[in-house]
Amino acid sequence: MIYPLCLISPTSMSDELNKGLEGVLVAESGLSDIDGDAGRLIYRGYNIEDLAREASYEEVLYLLWNGELPTRDELDAFSDTMTNEREVDDSVLETLASLAEADDHPMAALRTGVSMLSAGEPVTDADPENLDISRQKGRRIVAKVPTILAAYDRLRRGEEPLDPRPDLSHAGNFLYMLTGEEPTETAEETFDMALILHTDHGLNASTFTSIVISSTLADVYSAVTGGIGALSGPLHGGANQDVMATLLEIDESDKDPLQWVKDTIEAGGRIPGWGHRVYNVTDPRAKILRAKLEELTEDTGEDRWLEYTTTIESYLVDEKGLLEKNIAPNVDYYSGSVYYKLGIPVDMYTGIFAMARTGGWVAHILEYRENNRLIRPRGRYIGPDEREYVPIDDR
Amino acid sequence: MIYPLCLISPTSMSDELNKGLEGVLVAESGLSDIDGDAGRLIYRGYNIEDLAREASYEEVLYLLWNGELPTRDELDAFSDTMTNEREVDDSVLETLASLAEADDHPMAALRTGVSMLSAGEPVTDADPENLDISRQKGRRIVAKVPTILAAYDRLRRGEEPLDPRPDLSHAGNFLYMLTGEEPTETAEETFDMALILHTDHGLNASTFTSIVISSTLADVYSAVTGGIGALSGPLHGGANQDVMATLLEIDESDKDPLQWVKDTIEAGGRIPGWGHRVYNVTDPRAKILRAKLEELTEDTGEDRWLEYTTTIESYLVDEKGLLEKNIAPNVDYYSGSVYYKLGIPVDMYTGIFAMARTGGWVAHILEYRENNRLIRPRGRYIGPDEREYVPIDDR
Repeated sequence: MIYPLCLISPTSMSDELNKGLEGVLVAESGLSDIDGDAGRLIYRGYNIEDLAREASYEEVLYLLWNGELPTRDELDAFSDTMTNEREVDDSVLETLASLAEADDHPMAALRTGVSMLSAGEPVTDADPENLDISRQKGRRIVAKVPTILAAYDRLRRGEEPLDPRPDLSHAGNFLYMLTGEEPTETAEETFDMALILHTDHGLNASTFTSIVISSTLADVYSAVTGGIGALSGPLHGGANQDVMATLLEIDESDKDPLQWVKDTIEAGGRIPGWGHRVYNVTDPRAKILRAKLEELTEDTGEDRWLEYTTTIESYLVDEKGLLEKNIAPNVDYYSGSVYYKLGIPVDMYTGIFAMARTGGWVAHILEYRENNRLIRPRGRYIGPDEREYVPIDDR
Repeated sequence: MIYPLCLISPTSMSDELNKGLEGVLVAESGLSDIDGDAGRLIYRGYNIEDLAREASYEEVLYLLWNGELPTRDELDAFSDTMTNEREVDDSVLETLASLAEADDHPMAALRTGVSMLSAGEPVTDADPENLDISRQKGRRIVAKVPTILAAYDRLRRGEEPLDPRPDLSHAGNFLYMLTGEEPTETAEETFDMALILHTDHGLNASTFTSIVISSTLADVYSAVTGGIGALSGPLHGGANQDVMATLLEIDESDKDPLQWVKDTIEAGGRIPGWGHRVYNVTDPRAKILRAKLEELTEDTGEDRWLEYTTTIESYLVDEKGLLEKNIAPNVDYYSGSVYYKLGIPVDMYTGIFAMARTGGWVAHILEYRENNRLIRPRGRYIGPDEREYVPIDDR
């Protein structure tokens, strides 16, 4: 039996408009896999919960960039190289100082700071397809992002940037460069875990941006600079400061948190940190951060943020039934209070996200380059048909 | 009669891997339309040949950003506003000076320079969905790109940047700021035409990059900075200097141009400036630039570049039959010699492309924002299944 009408030509199929490219498969990747229904995230097969609990950010970078977890020797060599690459040129610090004076947003300053790094590149990349060179560039960027962010925050507070400390981990050194104090073990562990949780997450908009840029054989500086720009948007990473802003708003109001959330929803307000295009259940990263928030709360005895957070959550789940509507807390819902407890300024939260995700962008850039194909989709022209040009004085 | 097997679910359709997103429709646009078989390009209905011959770059920007060609009054008001926005802050020039000292590529310097512009933004954009604010930001970027590029070239030559001249057009002022001399009428006209030809070209990789970044509601600075990064790649804009490099190589060899091209192809070498993913016949922009190259050649009496260009073309078409294989000269094939005759350094050609295309990026950013949807495609995970984490000392 023949179904002649079943022949669907590529032309007719491609006439479908793929808004937001939702569900459109654009690449194969061995980096991370998200099961949105089960609430599961893995990096190269390893569950995010195991990695967050057991590994360091450096170890996760090695895994993503090389395919397998490192041995102790491999990790030491890798970490040492990256540690030696943390410093940035004085010209970068001078530019950051001028941006700080103009009160540029930290994400914009990071975008400019990373873009400047190409000028200090020790190796000229004659062959843009050389993956080893790209890997080195990527590693140098990842090493320097915390230095740029911490320096920028100090500069805008009128303080001198601090030199990186080679005896501290990637996570610990950032907290030191930001605050000027060596972090406690819990603080360092928590921040390292937050970095791991944010390192990779499939083909989100910023990762996809990096891949599109890199697909033209542009260098890693261009690709990562583009990723930072995409991540700064409120529909992507730019929203992770909103939760803390909300908690601070509750704190400053005279209201009981339950009353506040009721009133806000009554008035048509939005509670940030809920729902995700990919997850239908609680984001596994949110669960891990929630546990960490509880731990930090126990350590410090300051329970306001946890209290507000759980009050809102109980109300939205029990009274509003959000979970049944597949709307659950996402990673941003808990990261804000965690960062706040670590002493990180609220408008730096998206920068922290970028610090972690740079490792993921580099991993995707390297992986896509192995079977590179220029990314150039199609648009459907809906403008006027060809029309006659009328000289300006006859219009 | 029913064809039950014809039911194709979205799931089964989306399991197809769309490499490079070739042929995948991602947006509707009223900006430009390319007919690759007819070799036709229109901007909002107007043929590129009419616009190149009759309009100015400023007029084309107005057309793309507003939908219709301006009246004389509208154009004057628009041009005056943009002319007043050409200057950049001293801090940008200082950063460019430090990049010049490190011999950064002009496209990298432009990427950093544009990224820095957000710090000088006079209006704080509280609402990222405000299209008027985005339009103003876009206009300011377009106004300042020539200033950044010209300043960078002068700084690396050890010369002081020149202030923009408000009495000159967008095209004329750039040539003045670059060379320090007021351009001839033919030079200004030619350069203006080159800008118009490069302003927009559907959803190419850099334009798509800008749209993806902007789809997160990131600001125009982020979107354009990303576009510059994508355009710098050798598979996209980065190749437009290769043709001139080839012509210079012929010039420096002792060979007859015909012999050179024969030997090069014999040895497996590639002749740049031929073929385009979208055009199967001669790129209409190439035809216009070829005519302009002939005109400039007549004016100056220097016919080397035209001679080499036509010698190669005749050989590839008549002897190698490239046209029958749907491989024709693209826009890069003639733009190099044209820019060379205008006194523009070879490694600035991609920057010139960016200068023109920034207007197109801004047009697409504004248009896509009218019906914005976050762009987030899907990747197919092909990495290891979930596996057990092994502590580092047990590996």
